[in-house]
Amino acid sequence: MKLSQYFLPLLKETPNDAQIVSHRLMLRAGMIRQLQSGIYNWLPLGLRVLKKIETIIRDEMDKAGGLEILMPTIQPAELWQESGRYDAYGKEMLRIKDRHEREMLYGPTAEEVVSDIFRKNIKSYKDLPKNLYNIQWKFRDEIRPRFGVMRGREFLMKDAYSFDMDFESAKKSYDSMYKTYLKIFKRMGLKVIPVQADSGAIGGNLSHEFQVLAQTGESEIYYEKELETLLLQDEIDIEKLQKYYAAADEKHETQENKLPPHKLNKTRGIEVGHVFYFGTKYSKAMNITVKNNKGEDVFPEMGSYGIGVSRLVAAIIEANHDENGIIWPDSVAPFKVGIINLKTNDESSTKMCDEIYVKLREKNIEVLYDDREESTGAKFAAQDLIGTPYQIIIGPRGAAVGKLELKKRATGEKVEMLPEMALGKLV
Amino acid sequence: MKLSQYFLPLLKETPNDAQIVSHRLMLRAGMIRQLQSGIYNWLPLGLRVLKKIETIIRDEMDKAGGLEILMPTIQPAELWQESGRYDAYGKEMLRIKDRHEREMLYGPTAEEVVSDIFRKNIKSYKDLPKNLYNIQWKFRDEIRPRFGVMRGREFLMKDAYSFDMDFESAKKSYDSMYKTYLKIFKRMGLKVIPVQADSGAIGGNLSHEFQVLAQTGESEIYYEKELETLLLQDEIDIEKLQKYYAAADEKHETQENKLPPHKLNKTRGIEVGHVFYFGTKYSKAMNITVKNNKGEDVFPEMGSYGIGVSRLVAAIIEANHDENGIIWPDSVAPFKVGIINLKTNDESSTKMCDEIYVKLREKNIEVLYDDREESTGAKFAAQDLIGTPYQIIIGPRGAAVGKLELKKRATGEKVEMLPEMALGKLV
Repeated sequence: MKLSQYFLPLLKETPNDAQIVSHRLMLRAGMIRQLQSGIYNWLPLGLRVLKKIETIIRDEMDKAGGLEILMPTIQPAELWQESGRYDAYGKEMLRIKDRHEREMLYGPTAEEVVSDIFRKNIKSYKDLPKNLYNIQWKFRDEIRPRFGVMRGREFLMKDAYSFDMDFESAKKSYDSMYKTYLKIFKRMGLKVIPVQADSGAIGGNLSHEFQVLAQTGESEIYYEKELETLLLQDEIDIEKLQKYYAAADEKHETQENKLPPHKLNKTRGIEVGHVFYFGTKYSKAMNITVKNNKGEDVFPEMGSYGIGVSRLVAAIIEANHDENGIIWPDSVAPFKVGIINLKTNDESSTKMCDEIYVKLREKNIEVLYDDREESTGAKFAAQDLIGTPYQIIIGPRGAAVGKLELKKRATGEKVEMLPEMALGKLV
Repeated sequence: MKLSQYFLPLLKETPNDAQIVSHRLMLRAGMIRQLQSGIYNWLPLGLRVLKKIETIIRDEMDKAGGLEILMPTIQPAELWQESGRYDAYGKEMLRIKDRHEREMLYGPTAEEVVSDIFRKNIKSYKDLPKNLYNIQWKFRDEIRPRFGVMRGREFLMKDAYSFDMDFESAKKSYDSMYKTYLKIFKRMGLKVIPVQADSGAIGGNLSHEFQVLAQTGESEIYYEKELETLLLQDEIDIEKLQKYYAAADEKHETQENKLPPHKLNKTRGIEVGHVFYFGTKYSKAMNITVKNNKGEDVFPEMGSYGIGVSRLVAAIIEANHDENGIIWPDSVAPFKVGIINLKTNDESSTKMCDEIYVKLREKNIEVLYDDREESTGAKFAAQDLIGTPYQIIIGPRGAAVGKLELKKRATGEKVEMLPEMALGKLV
């Protein structure tokens, strides 16, 4: 992509209303624009990151045996009346009436809808276990939306739902998602701590939140120091992991067997994922049964597994930035490589830029080529702000001897080399 | 994917409430399930097709220089009051109040939102032309939703918006989208006729609808016979194409210079795309200006370009089916290959099935392996119903001599061959 043809409205000034760094950087880097309180337009750069995150989640969910479906944003009130949550949910639920005065709502989550799909289509133990997931926009009418997409009203969520014949199998499904979540966040370059969690309005008793470590996090989290070492290992023993102490906020406050302070790390976290086991709560309320191998009706055991997809964009920035801007992990970077033409009116520089641009594109490397007539300073600042992991810098002096500079955003390290060598490193 | 682990709730009976063949087949093939009137859940098989269609559209939009953004589903009423469409839109607009009693709506289209993005971020002629598009769910509260996803209330739409400095440039943008639409539908194996169209509530005077030829279409269309020949050519001359006569419904009725009946084909069509040029309608109403190269304020010329993404799934089926089920064009098929194991308890058959399944997956061929313990008839019927383009049939007799049967869904043609030869044909 040539920057002169892209839509990347960068801001020099820090927006006044943005309180946290990810919100400021997402606005400054032209990733999002507010449409109204808690509701955002995703501009091309932001959407690229959102889609990268989606792709990683989808890939790992599929590997874990999840089956992707897509449930609508608008749901009928009846299903929520059946589960008993329609009145309980309160004002965060966006309630809507259609032209025939039928009560509907914008889904804040989808336990009821997925349960309805299940009961109408799955009848036998032979079809279980099942894990159905979707990546869909949700709406929660927060009283005070804030921090950009971190706590928006319309937000993108991956929500998965597992159905099993008995507790043993349900626990396996739960552990499989727990393990999958660790893989997903690791692929995004994130350090997360799974903490024991309250299950809130949704009910249940086996529940973990996945917290990205960041000072701006809304939760206060406490975890056993040794946990960090364990999480760094390639093959993680979940049984062992779940035995370590880790809890957030009230869960920690109300805990009876807290560890002594010297064994604990205390920090702040951003919740990016949540896994619940809630047993037969919905299957009983909504009368969902399947036949077991004796022909008897059984209420399936359920769990639900959420990831805040749009929130993750902000969380990754909170965990990866410096004073100049964002530092994307390669796996979610909107463009892997930036090309900076230091002098657009110098023929040899432009020729060299054009050539490496074509070659990178031929290799399917995502590249953003700054071909604008702007100052050198503005071009450096732009690539650092938007966080391109690798930057190719080409000017008249280097072009004269056929060399470019390759800069790594994360370290600032710059090395002069021949274009072929840079290509070798980037492909 | 092994069918025993998939979620594919096939129906033997034809659902009573489905009036058109695509709706019946989408229900029977386990692609969708109604959640409420005009609102559908997409099950795994249906979602695969929806995503294939999305991918083709995205690819061609990007090639044509479109820039993908994502606008929220929920929009503020203020923007529609500004454009003057808030009252005009009527009951098809789903109007919503949030917890603070602010008026919002579920976007039926996004001219206002994209115009607002434009005016806040683009100021200079240097940034034009621009084509911003998004693929997002829309809601139109149809009084009588019908025909499944063909005329649903919540539906997926690709909507693009072009911004140009003058009419000449706007006409180029229009023609580029017109040409892109022909490419998109061709890639989906569809025969479409672009007809002159009324621009309806949206206003304007340069407007074409793209109609898929199908007897179940809601529009009556009339077109010059020679048009079909022209549309079959690889490189289409748009100037020439646009001169041929083609019109739908009232546009035809009110036409002054109709062609004589013997030069006309009369048929029915399903509208799957629409391109409009509407000039400065929105830029004037919403006071959007950009500086021209003399520093003067100019109202940009706009156009909008829609494709019914979810509707296309149904339209493709209307155009590609027989009495046994769907016949997917390769480009949008949910799975390219089906494997039918005629005898799951025969060791050599199962071994041969397993082997070719692994090999196809290694080559990234999407394959659905029917490993269920079902009758041969049920397995054949399932693959024909869901429309898998290529079917590999393996039974004890063939397995004994190391051969399989390769069946083409479109023609029913079956050829016996070695697995290596089948692989060669499918990869």
